[in-house]
Amino acid sequence: MARFCKSMCPRYQAAVDIVGKRWTGMILYALMSGPLRFNELTERLEVVSDRMVSERLKELESEGIVERRVQPEPPVRVEYRLTEKGLALSSVIEAIGKWAELWIQLDPAVLAAHSE
Amino acid sequence: MARFCKSMCPRYQAAVDIVGKRWTGMILYALMSGPLRFNELTERLEVVSDRMVSERLKELESEGIVERRVQPEPPVRVEYRLTEKGLALSSVIEAIGKWAELWIQLDPAVLAAHSE
Repeated sequence: MARFCKSMCPRYQAAVDIVGKRWTGMILYALMSGPLRFNELTERLEVVSDRMVSERLKELESEGIVERRVQPEPPVRVEYRLTEKGLALSSVIEAIGKWAELWIQLDPAVLAAHSE
Repeated sequence: MARFCKSMCPRYQAAVDIVGKRWTGMILYALMSGPLRFNELTERLEVVSDRMVSERLKELESEGIVERRVQPEPPVRVEYRLTEKGLALSSVIEAIGKWAELWIQLDPAVLAAHSE
């Protein structure tokens, strides 16, 4: 198992470091239903600032999880979509979401702090 | 979706904060195949210090994910096992592991730093 860990633990850690960043799960979840323009994305993620969404998208692009696609014919349209690597994350996001819904009880103070 | 996030985002975040702590995934993975004594656990997790395993177990106990069970008849035997909440995490650990195995490529420097 130690040998297994030597190869798997850093990979596992890299994966949770990606999906564990604040708002990243929500951005991926929003994109799971299809490509979105920046404004469409920020509308859906109302509670998240534009700057934060933009920052997260850049990170996800650099990880090869999200692709920024410019459609050059007018009107120019910029879309964000999940790559194959990003689509494959759906099962992770869904598993975490399902478990969290069933097993995580938050006290009202935490909920209030999070929605600030 | 913003309303959905208000309830789900903090829960999702709490979940990834648990499974994202260094070595936690590996400890849960080890316990997925059944209860283990402390020594059995540290043997399997060779690369992790006893102190770290002990710390993580305490955290997981306080989250209700791992149960420490003392069997009083001699010889006294202390076992760690996943609770129902912990067993339900299997799908999360497996989904992350599967995705990481397929999609995360690590350069040798990162692997070396991680095995220190």
